[in-house]
Amino acid sequence: MILGVNLSFAVKRWQEPKELASVCSELKVNHFQLNFDFIDPWWPEDTRNKICHDYRDAFEEKGLCFDSVFGGMADYTFPQFLGYSKTIRDISSTFRKRSIDATVELGGTAYGLALGGMTHKDAYDPEKRELIYQETIERLIDLAAYGKRKGLQDIEVEATPLFTEFPNDPDSSLRMMKDLNGKTDIPVLLFVDWGHALFKPLLKDKADLKIWLTTLKPYLGNMHLQQTDGMLDRHWDFRHTEGIVTREMIQDVLSSTGTEDKILYLEFSPAFETTDDDVLEGMKYSIEYLKPIADNL
Amino acid sequence: MILGVNLSFAVKRWQEPKELASVCSELKVNHFQLNFDFIDPWWPEDTRNKICHDYRDAFEEKGLCFDSVFGGMADYTFPQFLGYSKTIRDISSTFRKRSIDATVELGGTAYGLALGGMTHKDAYDPEKRELIYQETIERLIDLAAYGKRKGLQDIEVEATPLFTEFPNDPDSSLRMMKDLNGKTDIPVLLFVDWGHALFKPLLKDKADLKIWLTTLKPYLGNMHLQQTDGMLDRHWDFRHTEGIVTREMIQDVLSSTGTEDKILYLEFSPAFETTDDDVLEGMKYSIEYLKPIADNL
Repeated sequence: MILGVNLSFAVKRWQEPKELASVCSELKVNHFQLNFDFIDPWWPEDTRNKICHDYRDAFEEKGLCFDSVFGGMADYTFPQFLGYSKTIRDISSTFRKRSIDATVELGGTAYGLALGGMTHKDAYDPEKRELIYQETIERLIDLAAYGKRKGLQDIEVEATPLFTEFPNDPDSSLRMMKDLNGKTDIPVLLFVDWGHALFKPLLKDKADLKIWLTTLKPYLGNMHLQQTDGMLDRHWDFRHTEGIVTREMIQDVLSSTGTEDKILYLEFSPAFETTDDDVLEGMKYSIEYLKPIADNL
Repeated sequence: MILGVNLSFAVKRWQEPKELASVCSELKVNHFQLNFDFIDPWWPEDTRNKICHDYRDAFEEKGLCFDSVFGGMADYTFPQFLGYSKTIRDISSTFRKRSIDATVELGGTAYGLALGGMTHKDAYDPEKRELIYQETIERLIDLAAYGKRKGLQDIEVEATPLFTEFPNDPDSSLRMMKDLNGKTDIPVLLFVDWGHALFKPLLKDKADLKIWLTTLKPYLGNMHLQQTDGMLDRHWDFRHTEGIVTREMIQDVLSSTGTEDKILYLEFSPAFETTDDDVLEGMKYSIEYLKPIADNL
């Protein structure tokens, strides 16, 4: 396994670029993924780009960099590409392009995103769902063309554990990857979050990482790792004893599916009211727990 | 008690304006508070205003309206007024003014907000904390002047249950209200969330609504109601049996503090992966549970 860290744990805690770089430096990990809860792509462009450079420079000073930049909780809150009207979906295309601009300014080579969410009635209307799906494929093709012009290397689409979103299971993910394959100017890959992939209430007997990784193998980007009980999208750290993700399970899944070359970014999302000390302790505990199976540490 | 509903329960579920208005109409409540997880104030202004009108018109068609509009999870994710640099705080002033513009377009008369979050090192540095506090007072005075020009009636500042944010307890809330009192062009009031006010890990023996409401009485706006166990900021619905908020407790608190005239907006924030059916059931159950003590239903 190659271990990385998504900076979700630091949101609303270690925001200032140099302070964030110091905290990350202490973690002794060499792959970091920033997210758009630190920088809002909507912020006025010149100011936003300057802030992006502050983060990039602070990390460079510590010998670190961002491999990629992912959508955050803030932008996931909005309907984005799966919105209820063309106006809402057009706004999201603008937002996604601004996100790519910021990714490049941050020095990231990949942009990751969850596609958005449908309004209830669209999600339960097969015809409307299909219309939004087809339009989303076109929007991703357009986004990849934009990414190429900006020098981005790839785009990674995250599967989520909601019926009202897609892709949300191995089959819908495979369909999307096949529909995009060969049509995009840069690769559009599937990004698997282990907690989403193990979410039993939606996925039932497909809540199995071996099924996910075997099915999607030709299209896999990197992955998010979290501790979870499979009953909610927990994003726990590895101190939680009710979790079903163990070192042994991770090794077994990766070796049996031949996916040891993927980066697994720890993505912890503690409640905001958790203390900073507790969050940092959870991060450090989790990295220590995973280190024995991390080939890069 | 006057019962209202904050539309947090509907985020990522019933997004389309007419569908949202239908769902709200079914709840048989006459006070609604929209939040900025439906509309991002950063969206391009003309388009955003048209979307605001779509929501306002859809609600008017059902005989409903928004009393007020509150910040959402999305904007609470960012540092805002308590950010680590003047640049970040200036961006937030722009964002807050756009939020007021959107509130007015939605027909709301009040704008509610949590002020933002400090980066770790600022929160633990008393001098920096005080500097950010003083600047925030100036920013709120400026925001109230802007609100008055736009026809807003008041601004409501929400206390949060985090050491790294302010105000976060009865004393810091009272200080802020006194520092603003008489200096703002429209009233800036304190907005109490019952779950924040009952958060024991931070507040200890001040996690007591009678203390909060007695201390802040001259400056109180309306309030958020949630079910909670006092150990995390739960935002549960009232089906949760581990909760400490009961009808009897609500009545006792309101009558003993003389605050029966405030609107208590239910604010449930279910996990995104909870099904829509389950969320709606939780909302309806909670309203039925509270109806016997609601003077307006």
